[in-house]
Amino acid sequence: MSASVRRDAPVGAEVPPSREAAPDLVTGQVVAGPAPDGAEPLREAIPTSTAELVPTGLTPPDLAAALVEAGDGAFHALRQRLRREVLTGDLVRDPGQDLATAREWTSEQARRFAASGHAALGYPRHYGGTGDATDLPVGFAMLGYGDLSFDVKVGVQFGLFAGSILALGGQWHRETYLRDALTMELPGAFAMTEAGHGSDVQHLETTITYLPDSDEFEVDSPTPSATKVYIGNAACDARMAIVFGQLRTGGTDHGVHAILVPIRDEAGEPLPGVTIGDHGYKGGLPGVDNGTLSFHRVRVRRRLLLDRFGGVDTYGTYHSPIASPQARFFTMVGTLVRGRIKVGGSAAAAGRRTIALATRYALRRTQFPRPDGKGDVLLLDYLTHQRRLLPRIAEAYAYSFAQNELLLQLRRWDALESPDDRVERELETRAAALKVAQTRWAVDTAQVMREACGGAGYMAENLITQIREDLDVFATFEGDNTVLEQLVAKELLVHYRTVWGDLDLLGMARATARSFGEAVLERTAAQPLISRMVARAQMRGDDGLPLERGWQVLMFEDRERHILESLAHRAREAARARPDEAFTALNSLAPHMRAAARAHTERLVLEAFIAGIDATQDGRAALLLDRLCDLYVMSTIEADRAWFLEHNRLTPTRSKEISAEVDALCAELRPYAADLVDGFGIPEALLDAPMLRE
Amino acid sequence: MSASVRRDAPVGAEVPPSREAAPDLVTGQVVAGPAPDGAEPLREAIPTSTAELVPTGLTPPDLAAALVEAGDGAFHALRQRLRREVLTGDLVRDPGQDLATAREWTSEQARRFAASGHAALGYPRHYGGTGDATDLPVGFAMLGYGDLSFDVKVGVQFGLFAGSILALGGQWHRETYLRDALTMELPGAFAMTEAGHGSDVQHLETTITYLPDSDEFEVDSPTPSATKVYIGNAACDARMAIVFGQLRTGGTDHGVHAILVPIRDEAGEPLPGVTIGDHGYKGGLPGVDNGTLSFHRVRVRRRLLLDRFGGVDTYGTYHSPIASPQARFFTMVGTLVRGRIKVGGSAAAAGRRTIALATRYALRRTQFPRPDGKGDVLLLDYLTHQRRLLPRIAEAYAYSFAQNELLLQLRRWDALESPDDRVERELETRAAALKVAQTRWAVDTAQVMREACGGAGYMAENLITQIREDLDVFATFEGDNTVLEQLVAKELLVHYRTVWGDLDLLGMARATARSFGEAVLERTAAQPLISRMVARAQMRGDDGLPLERGWQVLMFEDRERHILESLAHRAREAARARPDEAFTALNSLAPHMRAAARAHTERLVLEAFIAGIDATQDGRAALLLDRLCDLYVMSTIEADRAWFLEHNRLTPTRSKEISAEVDALCAELRPYAADLVDGFGIPEALLDAPMLRE
Repeated sequence: MSASVRRDAPVGAEVPPSREAAPDLVTGQVVAGPAPDGAEPLREAIPTSTAELVPTGLTPPDLAAALVEAGDGAFHALRQRLRREVLTGDLVRDPGQDLATAREWTSEQARRFAASGHAALGYPRHYGGTGDATDLPVGFAMLGYGDLSFDVKVGVQFGLFAGSILALGGQWHRETYLRDALTMELPGAFAMTEAGHGSDVQHLETTITYLPDSDEFEVDSPTPSATKVYIGNAACDARMAIVFGQLRTGGTDHGVHAILVPIRDEAGEPLPGVTIGDHGYKGGLPGVDNGTLSFHRVRVRRRLLLDRFGGVDTYGTYHSPIASPQARFFTMVGTLVRGRIKVGGSAAAAGRRTIALATRYALRRTQFPRPDGKGDVLLLDYLTHQRRLLPRIAEAYAYSFAQNELLLQLRRWDALESPDDRVERELETRAAALKVAQTRWAVDTAQVMREACGGAGYMAENLITQIREDLDVFATFEGDNTVLEQLVAKELLVHYRTVWGDLDLLGMARATARSFGEAVLERTAAQPLISRMVARAQMRGDDGLPLERGWQVLMFEDRERHILESLAHRAREAARARPDEAFTALNSLAPHMRAAARAHTERLVLEAFIAGIDATQDGRAALLLDRLCDLYVMSTIEADRAWFLEHNRLTPTRSKEISAEVDALCAELRPYAADLVDGFGIPEALLDAPMLRE
Repeated sequence: MSASVRRDAPVGAEVPPSREAAPDLVTGQVVAGPAPDGAEPLREAIPTSTAELVPTGLTPPDLAAALVEAGDGAFHALRQRLRREVLTGDLVRDPGQDLATAREWTSEQARRFAASGHAALGYPRHYGGTGDATDLPVGFAMLGYGDLSFDVKVGVQFGLFAGSILALGGQWHRETYLRDALTMELPGAFAMTEAGHGSDVQHLETTITYLPDSDEFEVDSPTPSATKVYIGNAACDARMAIVFGQLRTGGTDHGVHAILVPIRDEAGEPLPGVTIGDHGYKGGLPGVDNGTLSFHRVRVRRRLLLDRFGGVDTYGTYHSPIASPQARFFTMVGTLVRGRIKVGGSAAAAGRRTIALATRYALRRTQFPRPDGKGDVLLLDYLTHQRRLLPRIAEAYAYSFAQNELLLQLRRWDALESPDDRVERELETRAAALKVAQTRWAVDTAQVMREACGGAGYMAENLITQIREDLDVFATFEGDNTVLEQLVAKELLVHYRTVWGDLDLLGMARATARSFGEAVLERTAAQPLISRMVARAQMRGDDGLPLERGWQVLMFEDRERHILESLAHRAREAARARPDEAFTALNSLAPHMRAAARAHTERLVLEAFIAGIDATQDGRAALLLDRLCDLYVMSTIEADRAWFLEHNRLTPTRSKEISAEVDALCAELRPYAADLVDGFGIPEALLDAPMLRE
């Protein structure tokens, strides 16, 4: 969305000239033919018969490996390392564990993870890490293929706790605490959320008051609603907590800051003034010891304030490198972006695992005989079943590519020499957008996959229900999805205003669609390639072909632009409301804002998918991904076809064609289902469910 | 759908003349005005301001009671009795129970239920029951408000096991086993499902072979896939199992029959030849001891065959009162319809419980301050939150009324003097349709409510996650929803063919819409009232008003008719396919069939809602229900507006109006949210979640 950041092709992903011609699916040889977005001729290269006629075994054995490489993109080496070294069968948790056992098991896994050296992924080499900050969200998100209690525990200890010491602390904090945090010698908690204000961090009630007499801070929970809640590591393990609260010196408020507070002694007992509660059983994640923390005038020495963005000197004077309290707050919170990126990636990984389980089940399970008496019908040969599984396989790849783009953007942000507010906000917006999309998708996917396995899916030993339960909270933690969607939309509006200033809306609308679109909706990936595709579609001059990539991009861009324009118009009107009507006026925009966020996200994902295919070296993998991209687009348009119909972007006839196209693509891809889920690259030990054994 | 069963107003539900005028919401007094389906004037009677202006306390305290009575319909007395006597706080299960404890707790609850005399609900008085067979699904479904492990355990023991003795057994079986089954002296299992064929009961592999030499049956599981799986009560408690298998005498197959097989001795050990497995942990329902059963040539004496519909005499000769094996099979399976009706009702009850919890939370929880600085905003004042909760409240009432209609239909079926295949199939079709609709709704609703409570919703102590986990399997047991939807559609097609014979489709289409509609889509409830509403809407001659009930009915009927017509057309074409293409031809119809089933179900539900409002005595309750019905219709059309747009039943403008109407109805009903969930009639002890305490 920003004019200041131009996106090029992903690192190491040159556009191979061969992608403009059609490789043969089986041999991978390039066959002369039109460009891949003129899709019809390519389709003939994929046999459309069912699995019996084209058994999956006929496809080359390395097709899955090529898909794994494509989906991993620039992060293939690190991900392969984690597959080998971390994602073993040890991560399959016994569903019968009680709370205490599950917590101990999870802590033990986290300690092993630290001992193996992986906890420092992404930290500076000085602290034993890889030195590439992007490695943290790349690597930690891989744990989503394993056990999610372990994934979250690692995220809390080595991501939030250690990560905040690095990001919010000064040199002293890092030198004093970071190594112990990264070995888990110092188990820590990240105490932000309060009972009263879950998503409203700016209005936290906890106070951090400077006491000049003793040169200390007093950390206090003045009301019950100031109690820190849902805090991971708090109920059992943490010895220190990073506590967020309102910093006060001499009667002046400086806004939200974070301070390290010792909460337990060596024996594990709460320190004086600290009250610790235990949330006990939850809907899932039994291995994470979520608890509550509240503070009764707890004294903490001055040095423990994490003061990189604001601190108090020996004279009791507040200093900050960032003058505006608002800017300071967003900078501090912005350092959490890695966690949000990681959470989306973990959720998507877990979702893919459920798809792999259900797809393999559908490839061995029969229910009814064929009408012609020739054996039974495999579940995956039912169109209804294909429609449950295959569009989700397409989405799984779509999110892989989108997450990779986001990680590359993070890497560029990490490499910036000086802070750039614009770049940072764009990164945060995309991180929020993909956190929402991937967690929503993963929770829903796990449920669909559970049901697709019938009774077997409900047995805990078959893994899906456990994943489903653990995933559930991903939709509301690390930013509630409903709140985040509105944040995304707000950012899009702010950007919109920046670009267009006070130019009146009618004037904007009169600008040519093309230049308008280019200005507002900057392409986020594979810019030159997509521009060529779009130009080709526009030149055609007819209504476009659903399988033409350029047409698809235009549909997504046009929808986003229209929703944003009308939202901007309504927002401008709402901004004129009297103060006592402001809530009502803004409130009525919320569904529109969510639609804007979704349309934006789906475009981001499509562009990333196109870039991902473009970067795929293996011809057959690229061909399959090309079809999956069609399926992603067709099923996305189908799901929102009411919008396209309401806004005369689809005729009723075309709309029905889109649905027929989804059916056709499902049938076309069905023979490759086994390869496609192998292409997720999930270690076999994590897919070892009894329902899949002979 | 049947021409042979004309539906009148529900029992005890005369059309009160006052319902043609508009009662005042606060006083309940009738105000002169047009009929309730000419909705605009009525709307003025409901203050549209927010909760602060019209606090819920202003509404009369008995409004909730009136809503409970309305929702209970003809079954109010029995339901009230169960609320008082069974649905106590004892049914809140500790989420920390391990498997063994949960199972023991559940069995203990079931024994208490039996000891209190409720287990015999619906059984003949001779066996200690109420003598009204409909009482079983009415009463047992109420347990869905409590713990679902208990609900399912009761369903297995007193519904499936005892119920099959009554329905499939002869006088000897009843006299010998029924009392012990109903006291739980004889714990039993219902062993139908096999590993190989979950939903395909006709092709079960278990064999029941008559041995003339010893005058016994031999029960055998010839293959591993013949193993009975997911059998409730099997892992621990059951001493006998009702085993379904293929009956054979002298080399002749007689199709699926059921036989009582002793499986455990007095000490609880498996009897010789019986292998019992334990499914262990599942995605929920920890209190239900699901297990596997397989049989190695187990000898059972001849009398134990449940032979009401087919048995073997002392000469080894097979006799059945039903000549056709196909008809016999469906008659036997048909006796299970009560179970399917109960399952839908239980699921809906559990769904309502999660709505009540989330709505109360939304009425006390704030997150962000108001833009005007005047305090914080209650969650329920956000439009996005209203849209999550209020349409589901409307659906909750809709399903209450639909379930009541189904139960009344069951009662009429029970009262038939001679079997009527047509009536029975219609009952089964509606039971399947509402099982699918209510279980799908309940599972999705619980998830939405969990998320609507954010982190609090994820804490097990706040009840929603446990309900969610227990509910999950309702979508795939007692008939997988995907399979059942297709059964519903098939029945609709069969009926369609019966009515229209071989008349060609074009000929049918040329018949006037009205007579065509009346013939194919028989109204299922409140027939005269709905006909008046429709006639009024048709007379108007314009495009209709979205809030006019007659227009709404026409929209639902027209959609169903069109989907069925085009499906019949496609089905006729598919029937002409060559045998080797038959699977492909039928397979391609499946999504269309599911759409037909859903459109049919939604019309059934709407008609039941109209009948339910019509039968509501309290004017204010009726007025609120009238608005809820509008919301049900508007949000149902909104969800499927793509179809209406694709088929030119909605213009783009009208489609957007529908969405705006959903927003407006949410705002209008929001002040009554507390009353509306109180109107579910859920005992307070079952809503006692810590997140709702001060």
